Amino acid sequence: MSDEDERAFQFLRINQRQAKPRTRGLTEIRGPYYTPMGRRYLADVLETMGAYIDALKFAGGAFALMRRAALKELIDLAHTHTVAISTGGFIEHVLTHGPAAVDAYLNECRELGFDVVELSRGFITLPLEDWESLVRKVHDVGLKAKVEVGIQFGAGGASTPDALAAIGTADPSLMIHQAKRLIAAGADQIMIESEGITESVRTWRSDVPARVVDQLGLEKVMFEAAEPAVFGWYIRNYGPEVNLFIDHSQIVQLECLRSGIWGTNELWGRVQTYKP
Amino acid sequence: MSDEDERAFQFLRINQRQAKPRTRGLTEIRGPYYTPMGRRYLADVLETMGAYIDALKFAGGAFALMRRAALKELIDLAHTHTVAISTGGFIEHVLTHGPAAVDAYLNECRELGFDVVELSRGFITLPLEDWESLVRKVHDVGLKAKVEVGIQFGAGGASTPDALAAIGTADPSLMIHQAKRLIAAGADQIMIESEGITESVRTWRSDVPARVVDQLGLEKVMFEAAEPAVFGWYIRNYGPEVNLFIDHSQIVQLECLRSGIWGTNELWGRVQTYKP
Amino acid sequence: MSDEDERAFQFLRINQRQAKPRTRGLTEIRGPYYTPMGRRYLADVLETMGAYIDALKFAGGAFALMRRAALKELIDLAHTHTVAISTGGFIEHVLTHGPAAVDAYLNECRELGFDVVELSRGFITLPLEDWESLVRKVHDVGLKAKVEVGIQFGAGGASTPDALAAIGTADPSLMIHQAKRLIAAGADQIMIESEGITESVRTWRSDVPARVVDQLGLEKVMFEAAEPAVFGWYIRNYGPEVNLFIDHSQIVQLECLRSGIWGTNELWGRVQTYKP
Repeated sequence: MSDEDERAFQFLRINQRQAKPRTRGLTEIRGPYYTPMGRRYLADVLETMGAYIDALKFAGGAFALMRRAALKELIDLAHTHTVAISTGGFIEHVLTHGPAAVDAYLNECRELGFDVVELSRGFITLPLEDWESLVRKVHDVGLKAKVEVGIQFGAGGASTPDALAAIGTADPSLMIHQAKRLIAAGADQIMIESEGITESVRTWRSDVPARVVDQLGLEKVMFEAAEPAVFGWYIRNYGPEVNLFIDHSQIVQLECLRSGIWGTNELWGRVQTYKP
Repeated sequence: MSDEDERAFQFLRINQRQAKPRTRGLTEIRGPYYTPMGRRYLADVLETMGAYIDALKFAGGAFALMRRAALKELIDLAHTHTVAISTGGFIEHVLTHGPAAVDAYLNECRELGFDVVELSRGFITLPLEDWESLVRKVHDVGLKAKVEVGIQFGAGGASTPDALAAIGTADPSLMIHQAKRLIAAGADQIMIESEGITESVRTWRSDVPARVVDQLGLEKVMFEAAEPAVFGWYIRNYGPEVNLFIDHSQIVQLECLRSGIWGTNELWGRVQTYKP
Repeated sequence: MSDEDERAFQFLRINQRQAKPRTRGLTEIRGPYYTPMGRRYLADVLETMGAYIDALKFAGGAFALMRRAALKELIDLAHTHTVAISTGGFIEHVLTHGPAAVDAYLNECRELGFDVVELSRGFITLPLEDWESLVRKVHDVGLKAKVEVGIQFGAGGASTPDALAAIGTADPSLMIHQAKRLIAAGADQIMIESEGITESVRTWRSDVPARVVDQLGLEKVMFEAAEPAVFGWYIRNYGPEVNLFIDHSQIVQLECLRSGIWGTNELWGRVQTYKP
């Protein structure tokens, strides 16, 4: 690696990070949905911060609106920076088209270069056995299966606190039960949906992450934390190597915090690791 | 059209859209003002979402601060994606420089490649007859005249609810009367300013769009809806083919909603069209 | 200068601006922290609005996470547009590594092409004499020393109003005393930190800028104003040639206001200069 490929200000000790592919401290960033994302912007993000990004997750099925050429440019570019591509939870929409559409979806995902298919059920209800079948199906086509679980029905699309409160949440034990069963079925990673926990709620349910970590550990779990106050809270409680899903726009702020070089007043100078 | 120019995941049925130039379901996006916009970002937006964008509207006269070369790059790029360019409401500033400035303005707009001149009066008051003269003047130089009407004086620059409430709104019947007269004078399209209706207000005036649609229909009318909750509301009430003006950053989220593939909990799976 | 290098719509009189390097009406924009910033986006900003940008300030030490090659591209690009590069207040972190790190930091800043080293103490406390030594040290390596002073301890990282209110603010006279001493020690410019004045507070402390201007004048002072309502307030009170630090995303909106061509209702048509 030439000098120019190394980070600037090498003499400053910062919290050490594993080289990619990492097993701890993974950061997944959200792709186009709340903002557009084209190949120039993605190149900007990856050239400046790519070393700290493990995966790029599409949202809302935005890729299904793009020309194949434009989509493949994004996917290929991410791959040159060793960034995995996840579908996000579009399977929920595909399921409404029936089982043949699921097959076609998974095949086209593989063909386009997706690495991870997310299996969520924020907007729909689905028997747990069928969810397990989807995990196996994703593996059958040679892709990774990331499961998203949560306590809030109707999650996944920026709904208001009132709208979601009216629906009510499920007990966290259900979500944890689902996660355990899906891990047993082979799920590669578990995403914890933030709605009902730290998003679209009046008061954070801090008991929920505590139970998740107690029951599932940190290794296979990634928390959705697409607000600076939320990712600050996860790092304060679970350390700088907790796996987090954030918005693409937040990658600099998050990595300043993980690395221990900057933060809000409560965390400035306080984010430490020990790697002797 | 080659495969690569087609959208990905063709096997999924989504709400059909007319090819451009469209007559229904038009989307106009806001250009540089609340954020910068250069040719690389615009290329990103157009390469990934250009099929769903009908027009690009400048705001606040930002083009008058740019070098001609940079401005023409934006305009030419938009044209290669069949996106029309609107001036936004800068005529209000130009009018304060007198009638010769209006002539010079319209001529330079045409020379630079603008397609549409917006004629608004959010910050100024102007006799209706003079407004009609402006419509004809715009047509005389060979451009389209888009009129923006509204109920809020002082609209057009992100003022606070309190500041605008202190001024008070006009009765919607005045705005509708103006729109009818300006359509009779040849106005090509009517933009409904959101301030006083869904923006900078404490409670939305949902009666106003209802009266607009009742009196003017949907075809020539475009609603300003530069907040996701607002464009969601318009689509819920008027269907996915209502003409909307949004911020450039919102194009993916809006098109996911129009196409029926994603949305908030209340609209997820509910946005339908029937084109046998 | 060819026609294409001139701004469009030359026939419109706008508030005259000095050519760069300016001594009045300076605008410094924030670089990557709350968002990423790569060379393509920066090129977009500079090609369209570069004439109105005097300096680019990094934040949170984000440069220390970038590859040297990517960082130098940003710096070199800014220089081609006559935009100075400031470190932002990363010295606070460097100081925790001891005096040798400070030397290494300043040398690498010079080597990479930084023009200005900001010397702040929002998160740390530091004897005033040591602060003066830093000003001299920065000059010794041939760079400009910009001092940031403020009334809020714990400032510099988007903390909440409650968190900062619990800490309390210092009397403005202390900040002004510091600024005077540091100017006497050779500081080239004074940045007034907005936290505790117009940011992360429930009510703005409008008395503080008044005392700053009364005691220090406007020439060497720059106000942090990274919210449109804040920079609107400074322009209303101190005119369009007050020096302001804003977010990169706000440059169009600010310059529309400085130039007198657009604004909110209270300022539309009201921002004037007189240069006979």
